[in-house]
Amino acid sequence: MSFGTSVPYVDARERVTGSVDFVSNLEIPGMLHARCLRSPYAHASVARIDASRATRLSGVGAVLTGPKLLAQSVNSTFGLFIRDQPIVATDRVRYAGDVVAAVAAVDQATADEALDLIEVEYEELPAVFDVEQALEPGAPILHPGPRILQSRRPDILARQPGFEGTNVIHLFTQRKGDVAAGFEAADTIIENTFSSPPVGHVPLEPHVAVAQFAPDRLVVWSSSQAPHWLALELAWVFKLPISSVRVIVTTLGGGYGAKIDPSIEPIAAVLARMAGRPVRLALDRREEFLTHTKHGARVRIRTGARRDGTLVAHEATCWYNGGAYAKETPEKIFRGYASMGPYRVPNVHVDSYGVYTNIVPSAAFRGFGIPQVAWAHESQMDILADELAIDPIDLRMRNVLVPGDQFSTGERIEEDLRYPKLIEGAASYLGWGERPVREEHGTKVTGRAISAIIKGMSAFPSSSIVKLNGDGSLNVLTSTVEMGQGSLTTLAQIAAHEAGLPLEHVRVSTPDTAHTPWDQMTAASRSTNSMGRAIRAAVRDAKGQLLDLAADRMEVAATDLEVVEGMIRPKGVPEKSLPVAAILGPSRLGNILGRGSYFGQSHLDTETGQGIGSPQWHPAVCACEVEVDRETGKVEITKLRLFLYIGRMINPINCQLQVQGAALMGLGQALFEELSWDEQGRLLNPNLSDYLIPSFLDMPDEIGQTILEEPDTIDVHGIGETGLPSVMPAVANAVSRAVGVRITELPITPEKVRELL
Amino acid sequence: MSFGTSVPYVDARERVTGSVDFVSNLEIPGMLHARCLRSPYAHASVARIDASRATRLSGVGAVLTGPKLLAQSVNSTFGLFIRDQPIVATDRVRYAGDVVAAVAAVDQATADEALDLIEVEYEELPAVFDVEQALEPGAPILHPGPRILQSRRPDILARQPGFEGTNVIHLFTQRKGDVAAGFEAADTIIENTFSSPPVGHVPLEPHVAVAQFAPDRLVVWSSSQAPHWLALELAWVFKLPISSVRVIVTTLGGGYGAKIDPSIEPIAAVLARMAGRPVRLALDRREEFLTHTKHGARVRIRTGARRDGTLVAHEATCWYNGGAYAKETPEKIFRGYASMGPYRVPNVHVDSYGVYTNIVPSAAFRGFGIPQVAWAHESQMDILADELAIDPIDLRMRNVLVPGDQFSTGERIEEDLRYPKLIEGAASYLGWGERPVREEHGTKVTGRAISAIIKGMSAFPSSSIVKLNGDGSLNVLTSTVEMGQGSLTTLAQIAAHEAGLPLEHVRVSTPDTAHTPWDQMTAASRSTNSMGRAIRAAVRDAKGQLLDLAADRMEVAATDLEVVEGMIRPKGVPEKSLPVAAILGPSRLGNILGRGSYFGQSHLDTETGQGIGSPQWHPAVCACEVEVDRETGKVEITKLRLFLYIGRMINPINCQLQVQGAALMGLGQALFEELSWDEQGRLLNPNLSDYLIPSFLDMPDEIGQTILEEPDTIDVHGIGETGLPSVMPAVANAVSRAVGVRITELPITPEKVRELL
Repeated sequence: MSFGTSVPYVDARERVTGSVDFVSNLEIPGMLHARCLRSPYAHASVARIDASRATRLSGVGAVLTGPKLLAQSVNSTFGLFIRDQPIVATDRVRYAGDVVAAVAAVDQATADEALDLIEVEYEELPAVFDVEQALEPGAPILHPGPRILQSRRPDILARQPGFEGTNVIHLFTQRKGDVAAGFEAADTIIENTFSSPPVGHVPLEPHVAVAQFAPDRLVVWSSSQAPHWLALELAWVFKLPISSVRVIVTTLGGGYGAKIDPSIEPIAAVLARMAGRPVRLALDRREEFLTHTKHGARVRIRTGARRDGTLVAHEATCWYNGGAYAKETPEKIFRGYASMGPYRVPNVHVDSYGVYTNIVPSAAFRGFGIPQVAWAHESQMDILADELAIDPIDLRMRNVLVPGDQFSTGERIEEDLRYPKLIEGAASYLGWGERPVREEHGTKVTGRAISAIIKGMSAFPSSSIVKLNGDGSLNVLTSTVEMGQGSLTTLAQIAAHEAGLPLEHVRVSTPDTAHTPWDQMTAASRSTNSMGRAIRAAVRDAKGQLLDLAADRMEVAATDLEVVEGMIRPKGVPEKSLPVAAILGPSRLGNILGRGSYFGQSHLDTETGQGIGSPQWHPAVCACEVEVDRETGKVEITKLRLFLYIGRMINPINCQLQVQGAALMGLGQALFEELSWDEQGRLLNPNLSDYLIPSFLDMPDEIGQTILEEPDTIDVHGIGETGLPSVMPAVANAVSRAVGVRITELPITPEKVRELL
Repeated sequence: MSFGTSVPYVDARERVTGSVDFVSNLEIPGMLHARCLRSPYAHASVARIDASRATRLSGVGAVLTGPKLLAQSVNSTFGLFIRDQPIVATDRVRYAGDVVAAVAAVDQATADEALDLIEVEYEELPAVFDVEQALEPGAPILHPGPRILQSRRPDILARQPGFEGTNVIHLFTQRKGDVAAGFEAADTIIENTFSSPPVGHVPLEPHVAVAQFAPDRLVVWSSSQAPHWLALELAWVFKLPISSVRVIVTTLGGGYGAKIDPSIEPIAAVLARMAGRPVRLALDRREEFLTHTKHGARVRIRTGARRDGTLVAHEATCWYNGGAYAKETPEKIFRGYASMGPYRVPNVHVDSYGVYTNIVPSAAFRGFGIPQVAWAHESQMDILADELAIDPIDLRMRNVLVPGDQFSTGERIEEDLRYPKLIEGAASYLGWGERPVREEHGTKVTGRAISAIIKGMSAFPSSSIVKLNGDGSLNVLTSTVEMGQGSLTTLAQIAAHEAGLPLEHVRVSTPDTAHTPWDQMTAASRSTNSMGRAIRAAVRDAKGQLLDLAADRMEVAATDLEVVEGMIRPKGVPEKSLPVAAILGPSRLGNILGRGSYFGQSHLDTETGQGIGSPQWHPAVCACEVEVDRETGKVEITKLRLFLYIGRMINPINCQLQVQGAALMGLGQALFEELSWDEQGRLLNPNLSDYLIPSFLDMPDEIGQTILEEPDTIDVHGIGETGLPSVMPAVANAVSRAVGVRITELPITPEKVRELL
């Protein structure tokens, strides 16, 4: 059986031969190519727009402007929670890069030429870029009008009406115990503020979408992580039943959260409807940077502890910079629930704001809100340890969650997340207690430190259909998106395991929302767990029918039959086995169908933040060794090892690669990733020369992972994000151990280190 | 509700705007175009084939010859029942037009140029074209070797091993009662032989397939009526699990049975694998004629009757000319069970042969074997009426099946097929008994007559999945093929009716075998019934889950809820209705899935022909008036009206159009359609100049249908074929009434009529 073994990707040969199907490669006869005109201003009203010359240009199929959009019978705005983003600007632009018009033409060059012919008169408005300034009285308001809410998420949006007319996108608050009394009882109280900047997702493949309109039906191919959610929004925009909108996704060249919310698809679809031809819209790298970011955030934490290190009170205010549109911000700010980290704290008071500002809108990003708070709470823990003169390992061991402890949400953590083992592993890896945490070699100083984080898994429903074919092979219909993470392989391993079939007889689909059933999105470390459970349920449904057939034929009770490697056998009597095909083929049924779904619920009260935060919790501890050059301030990460608990690994190598990918992304954010704007709010580095991501040269000498398993379970945790949030504070803590410098604003650049030295 | 009303085709706008998706229009980047080299000989061994010059031609991607085929790890032959058809000829060619090599090149012209460079040396073998000659001792044997049987059809193929080394493709025999005693008891015995020639299907869209090979995975777009069956054969050819073969079908430009069995797809797929690029193979009109025909047939009938017209014995021998390959012939010959027509006959003896000959292979054709026997038995009935001096209406009324009667298969016909009403309707339409059946006007003579036939529905499983979306819209996953017959509309009406949803919220899929569940084929008048039942079962499955959800929310027992026009309401309390979306949306489930299948069983013993012939029976009576020109022999059909019973019409206009289409196809076969060969077995008229199909000028002045319904049922009969077989004998009978001439060989050409006059 393949379950638990490192089988190669099922599409490995296609990947290495370059024949993997990307939406980028799609060509449809008669297809037009679209380009977008973008605002040069951070905030302005559109006084006049004249596209008549562009429309007359030969080769142009459609020109979309605000007035043309409003003249159509569509909903002109979209958004996953708050429908605040216009397909193209209708009255104002809200960031430098906002789309003000779009053109579809026979090729990109003609479309670009047409863009040049569009005349726009802007009237500049005061802009605001800083989250706290945006909340001050008198700040420019980005969305002064009433808000259109996505009615299906009352669980998240309960408090929305209170925020109209402000720049508050949404507010999550958590109230547990008596925080004033907690601080009263504390021997030590420290307060610090930690910032992390907007960074880019930088998927290798920028966004691309192709839209084709039939009279009353829309087909969109998109590099989307959330095809069904996209279909829902397109149905809203075009006032179509969901059954008339079809979103097809092949393989993605990475996503990292950037491809969850709709962005370019409504533009392509409106152009396609106007032109009566298919329209392709592909972003270039600059536009990719101008479409989404990770939320920049500021997190102020006040921590109260007893002399022995016991945490007694936690107060935090988180400001997540949502940029110009809400996107996933209303849900993301809920991650304020983890602002005290994986520790038991009896008294908690958290305010977590999502805030509109005039920068590129923020989207989901690997880690979904946890990196921002983890950066704060794990820096804070090392500061607290120093303040209390307690070993930082000991401080964590004293407070860390063990089974039966209550989390900030009030829920008891019942699963053994193995934090003590993970922390011990990290300490042991670093030689904690055996050698000093700080060692000098000339101008360079080595420092060692750890961090510990907790991450939830977003709770959404997954569903699956399986089709057991006459030859005993299995098609699995799922809307999980293969974006390089290996879901086609992992989900096939799960299905094969549950079905008792050889892996090579199982084929997992890519999403096609007209065919493959609902899944919310491929994100939030949820697919292996949620979709895995849905697939297992669907397989059990089909297998039950198969065994009933076999029971008749073999004259054995169905409950006494099992399926092993494609053979149906009476339990304990392998010599009486029959191949699945020998039962199904002659039945002439053609196939057996199974359906399954899973919905791991969570629910937090929006005022108290109490309830169930996640159907499952993911723990990570990072051990880091850095070498800081005292002359240049340069930080080199020499060792980086993540310690995780995962339930069970389905494909060990795949798990390791996911962890290493997360570690490297964390390394980039720790050391150099940062989007920067000029004073007018124009992005200064939307390209891969000026915006740095880790290269192979940045790889630590030692990078690795230790993944703890529970061998008796086939229940699994996702692992795509878990390690990432722990990296940045571990690096900062190690730098602090090395040279006594505490960086509170990411990234940890040589300039900042040298200045503090 | 749309059920039972003539709603326009759901794709009407796409059809009239020319944007319907045909496989012919598919373009894939890098796609090559294939052409086939065809044998000039009816029977020959391939002594040598040299494709080296073709292979070297610039622009050629792959050249497939017999030796190259055998060098690959594929099964080199395919076939739905007997795998006797080589992908390209490996040792011999069996008809003039048989494929001996194929080339894929950058365009068709280059491929054609390459074909010219292939050198083939043939050694001619004796050929046989006539079915009876082919069965004589010493006849050339087309398939001397052992036969590879499709193991899933033991019900059909039980007697196969007996026929190896002969030209018998397959034999169906029926033995009921004591036929010798029956003839003994008869007052009159007549024996006649009736022939019908091979004719072309002439779909507007010739066959087209595009194949794309990934390393271990095959995708084929095809104009196939049987996508899953095709996937099964391609899996066999390439030794792949079915889950790794994906057949996608969009809309067909007609099929009529020609597009059921695989033909060009294995060629395209092997070329695609060889070339490492997608390959498109599209037949031209000539090749379409060279790929399939309707079975020519000879049917000898001996009928015994009492003086009062009571039928007492029926003996028939049917020879179906299968041409060079078996295709569907093994099943088709079972239709010998209807060689006595829709009458109760206590003593029956039928031998029904499928025979290999060196002509174009025969395939399924609208009516599937019934037209050949109906032509015989309904001509015979009028001859018998004259012999007995009984009115032909009276003769039929005396013998026709009524509920409780036993059919030739031994089964009781329980459903009221309403034959007496249909016959009365036809007689009344023709003014039977009110005016003479023969009227002269100068050189022209009018004649009037009827015919009555019975047709089964092929018994195969259908299955379906439905996806009820959060907004209350419904996706129906089915592998039924829309080929112009309106299945997308009719199946949507069925689903909407069962679900209680507005039609516009329901969208029916086209087939994609990786996603849409098993259906045997879109043919045999089975989709509306079989797939309709499968869809209804799937909808009930989903609706049950929906009502359980609603019951919780509305605090009403699920059994007390119903869904009407998208509203869930407590029965009898419409004011408490809630939209489906109001239950499903906030549940956040995304969708509810339902699965359903239906398998209307039939089983006939292959030696006695006794059992269940069809899960359902379809009756038709044709009323025809002709005008025969005694000078030229030309027959003009002046009135043609079909009388049918259908259970319930889902879409009346669609039913009427289907009946009229069948009537016109019958008219063509009655009057002029006939493929003809020269003495070397070369097809003389493979084009639409020399092969005549009906044009609008051939339309009768009056053409119509009377369709009887059972208003209390939602169970439906298919109607796509029912009328067709009745047309040819009705025309012949009318000609006979007019001018006393009995044509026994179709078509009824002026030459034949004049000669007999």
